[in-house]
Amino acid sequence: MTQIVPVILCGGSGTRLWPRSRATQPKPFLPLIGEDTIFEATLARCASFAAPVVVTRAAHLSHVEAQLGGATGACIIVEPQARNTAAAIALAAMRLPGDAVMLVCPSDHHIGDPKAFAEVACKAAELASQGWLVSFGIEPTGPETGYGYLKRGEPLDHGGFRTAQFVEKPDLERATAFLAEGGYAWNGGIFAFSAATFLDELTAQAPGIAGPLREAVAKGREDGARFYPDASAFAGADSISVDYAVMEKTARAALVPARMVWSDIGSWESLHAARDKDDEGNAVNGRAELVDCRGVLVESDGPRVSVIGLEGVVVVVDGDEVLVTSMAGAQKVGKLGGAMNQ
Amino acid sequence: MTQIVPVILCGGSGTRLWPRSRATQPKPFLPLIGEDTIFEATLARCASFAAPVVVTRAAHLSHVEAQLGGATGACIIVEPQARNTAAAIALAAMRLPGDAVMLVCPSDHHIGDPKAFAEVACKAAELASQGWLVSFGIEPTGPETGYGYLKRGEPLDHGGFRTAQFVEKPDLERATAFLAEGGYAWNGGIFAFSAATFLDELTAQAPGIAGPLREAVAKGREDGARFYPDASAFAGADSISVDYAVMEKTARAALVPARMVWSDIGSWESLHAARDKDDEGNAVNGRAELVDCRGVLVESDGPRVSVIGLEGVVVVVDGDEVLVTSMAGAQKVGKLGGAMNQ
Repeated sequence: MTQIVPVILCGGSGTRLWPRSRATQPKPFLPLIGEDTIFEATLARCASFAAPVVVTRAAHLSHVEAQLGGATGACIIVEPQARNTAAAIALAAMRLPGDAVMLVCPSDHHIGDPKAFAEVACKAAELASQGWLVSFGIEPTGPETGYGYLKRGEPLDHGGFRTAQFVEKPDLERATAFLAEGGYAWNGGIFAFSAATFLDELTAQAPGIAGPLREAVAKGREDGARFYPDASAFAGADSISVDYAVMEKTARAALVPARMVWSDIGSWESLHAARDKDDEGNAVNGRAELVDCRGVLVESDGPRVSVIGLEGVVVVVDGDEVLVTSMAGAQKVGKLGGAMNQ
Repeated sequence: MTQIVPVILCGGSGTRLWPRSRATQPKPFLPLIGEDTIFEATLARCASFAAPVVVTRAAHLSHVEAQLGGATGACIIVEPQARNTAAAIALAAMRLPGDAVMLVCPSDHHIGDPKAFAEVACKAAELASQGWLVSFGIEPTGPETGYGYLKRGEPLDHGGFRTAQFVEKPDLERATAFLAEGGYAWNGGIFAFSAATFLDELTAQAPGIAGPLREAVAKGREDGARFYPDASAFAGADSISVDYAVMEKTARAALVPARMVWSDIGSWESLHAARDKDDEGNAVNGRAELVDCRGVLVESDGPRVSVIGLEGVVVVVDGDEVLVTSMAGAQKVGKLGGAMNQ
């Protein structure tokens, strides 16, 4: 059986769940759904595989180490700066045996059916061992315009398909047409490939990343479970996503269909969708009293929140910030002064 | 010219503006509109008359004395307990010369046109000197169902009218009919009558108040500007409103029409209506950022409030309580657990 090594990406610092998520305490490290943090839940659903590699930045290191808990044998790669996903994944690939299958997981996604995730991961790993670069093709539940889409090509082993096309975020009309046509999946940024295959493709397709990173790793230093790439070499690497750098260019792109109650928790609206709700569609975390409310999300870190007569509204209380927004307005949270200046 | 003595009633402890208004810091003592508190504004618009008599309770005494400011010569009557308006007004009447005209003012109303108020007060005082018990008949601005109505009878001097009828809070159909018919006014609980006339009527119509209060005043004690009625005698007085006890029963009821931009600030919705607003109808007190909002009221004692994409919503942050309600839902604020247990 192939060794599956989870590679957990902890580099982001999103503002879309501000004010709960802040630069100093970003989304992965918050218990937004259930009692575990999103990062802890990500580790938990990978626990049946090998010890993980966590790629993060110094700013988040204390959160990562505090929450790694029982993940014994975990390695932590500390990036000198944020350099997008291609570089983060490449660092992990260069620290692993060539035949290891990397299971690349963002640390800020929610997956409601971890058993299904593990099953899909095993199929993807089989294809990865055959030399494919595999994307999880997440079954669309609606014509979302916020995700890229993957188009299925010819069938492969283990229920997989060649990826016929990577489609950039479509407009609503195109997204609706994709769902009507069938054979499209969301690209959720979850991948499986062997370290050697990935590095071969990276070298071929993105030498501006592969070269500097080889130097950064060669000159890097270990400190217990931590590995620090050389900062000055690292700074020379291009900052682009793994999709642009590798996945969209390789001739070996494949996908495995994934039906696993997935959410990228990319807004308060999608967090509300992912949460357990009462009969009126309300979801509460913290002290709250709701009267005549439907589809309301309340998140409070202390003060009691009383809500009366509202539908489809989000209320977030965090420290000295209070956010009240319509579900649709939640898309604009990152543009608020508070979120910009956090 | 008749001596007009403002009698300011500070006995209430309403919960309808919870959580900003609390048992320990009720509505009159808060700067809800402009920089002055509602009590201070009440004093200010009576400043052209004689020194006021303030009727309050021990719980509010510190607020009253702190905010009396320049109201030199003011007397404070400290009620042993809340005993409704008839008793409060009777205490003041018993402490005043019989020919003094009492101008009875709740301390928790907003009047946007203080000059008009003073003019109406002078007309009411003239009628009071003639032996009438005069209500301010507030010109209705809509078919409100939350107020009692006064029906005009035959004309009197000084632009006044006999009060033909006191009408209990009507349903919407009746209120709409009153406005269509004309000749009706809101009963806002503002009155003018001479002390002697009031006490004569009280003795005749409500001996269960007049008797115990005479004893409470006779056995009371002075302490500087404060007067403390005897608690045990006071406890024997009936607890009913001045409307029920006297105004609805007397044959000498009159009204003067009053058009003075009045509000009882009886809910967050009516506070929003009384506030200065921007072009989108938003009113903000405290740190706030509003995006795509209309008709929103924000009141914060500290934390920044960010609101996106909402219409007709009230957000109040006060200490450890956060209230978010639709304008219509604001009627239910007093029934929330927080407001009940404050």
